[in-house]
Amino acid sequence: MITSTANQKIKRILKLQKKAKARNEEGIFIVEGIRMMKEAPESRIKELYISETFLQKYPDLPEHLKKKAEMVSDTVFAHMSDTKTPQGILGVIRRMSWTMDELLHGEDGRAPFLMVLDHLQDPGNLGTIFRTAEGAGVTGVILGSNCADLYQPKVIRSTMGSIYRMRAVCVDDMKETVRFLKQHGIHTYAAHLDDSRFYDEEDYTKPTAFLIGNEGNGLPEEICAEAEHKIKIPMHGQVESLNAAMAAGILMYEVCRQRRK
Amino acid sequence: MITSTANQKIKRILKLQKKAKARNEEGIFIVEGIRMMKEAPESRIKELYISETFLQKYPDLPEHLKKKAEMVSDTVFAHMSDTKTPQGILGVIRRMSWTMDELLHGEDGRAPFLMVLDHLQDPGNLGTIFRTAEGAGVTGVILGSNCADLYQPKVIRSTMGSIYRMRAVCVDDMKETVRFLKQHGIHTYAAHLDDSRFYDEEDYTKPTAFLIGNEGNGLPEEICAEAEHKIKIPMHGQVESLNAAMAAGILMYEVCRQRRK
Repeated sequence: MITSTANQKIKRILKLQKKAKARNEEGIFIVEGIRMMKEAPESRIKELYISETFLQKYPDLPEHLKKKAEMVSDTVFAHMSDTKTPQGILGVIRRMSWTMDELLHGEDGRAPFLMVLDHLQDPGNLGTIFRTAEGAGVTGVILGSNCADLYQPKVIRSTMGSIYRMRAVCVDDMKETVRFLKQHGIHTYAAHLDDSRFYDEEDYTKPTAFLIGNEGNGLPEEICAEAEHKIKIPMHGQVESLNAAMAAGILMYEVCRQRRK
Repeated sequence: MITSTANQKIKRILKLQKKAKARNEEGIFIVEGIRMMKEAPESRIKELYISETFLQKYPDLPEHLKKKAEMVSDTVFAHMSDTKTPQGILGVIRRMSWTMDELLHGEDGRAPFLMVLDHLQDPGNLGTIFRTAEGAGVTGVILGSNCADLYQPKVIRSTMGSIYRMRAVCVDDMKETVRFLKQHGIHTYAAHLDDSRFYDEEDYTKPTAFLIGNEGNGLPEEICAEAEHKIKIPMHGQVESLNAAMAAGILMYEVCRQRRK
């Protein structure tokens, strides 16, 4: 059992919790909690730590997890955890990598359905978009390198497991990416506030990509200009805009609705 | 200028920030930030505090706010603020109170459209539901007394100003409330995960109320049983449920969509 916070393994975990660079170099992310650990594909679990009292609370830990678990004292676990009230289980998970080609061709032969995120900075919004995207049947997510780090603990938590399954690609040049999508027959829709058609007046049974921008400022004009269509969500009252994840979710479920009809 | 954190006014604000009971006794809530203060109806602003350097950053503060502002030192302001990086403006706002009758009869003659929240515990979700509800044209929100406190700072922030405008009533007996709604011709729909019709197969142009439950556990069975219909949001992949605010938003905008047709 590891009982010292000076232990090299613990120091490394702390670094992985806090530094995107360290996570990127190892190609991993960290998950916490029993639910997230149970959903983790076995082959991708690189390391697993449990607190000394964890098995008392969760005696029915699956065998494949038990086998990999290294025990640490409760004090050390509290030190390495990113949460205020840790459950006592933490895993280091290998990332998957996808190509743009895998995003353009879904597994199931349906028309591709992509979410393109630019300057999305709020970790909770980013994670919620991943979770909702999986639910709505999105093929994949394209993230501008100006977005929040997908692999930081708060994003991982908000994905509620969708991080294991949702295809994602990170891109540097967003303008070029939108052009690429158009060249490949994907219809691109920029979420916009003015001078746009209502989002539910378009046909999303065709290959579709939504462009979603920053929580406060929306999409940059030059990215908007590249999009084939501009769409808006109608707004009653004095509301100027919706939360970015909410707007994305409403758009995604409109696609889902149209494709079920 | 107030320069001491021991000042009675400052001590009272701190208490109002932290204690629901103190807020309830005074029938107020606290807002922070220039945007929220600008949206506050003038007649409801009871007190207003600005930091000593605030006017340097925002010299164009509207006259009606300037008139009411009491200055405090930056150190004292940081002490009384609920945010890590305060903008330097904080107001004490009188609450509105609505009757159930005002919720049943919207201002504009449209069929009532209500959100009924039970055991909703997450402040961010509660605030986001208020913001989205205003955008979607909801008539009013009914909150079980088991929900998070509507007037706590985190909820107020997430409403982005909808707290000033969205009608809301708090109820103790949720079962009784659902019966009351049915007796008044409101069609009640419980968001449910199993054995239900898809949400977009119902007609929401009629008087409509959605029942939304807790983030983790959903609606209690006895509340669900009172609802006229059970509906579910379809889910691809391995997603078990959506975030509560997200689910509420998707339902609300389906009503909005149907009522525009």
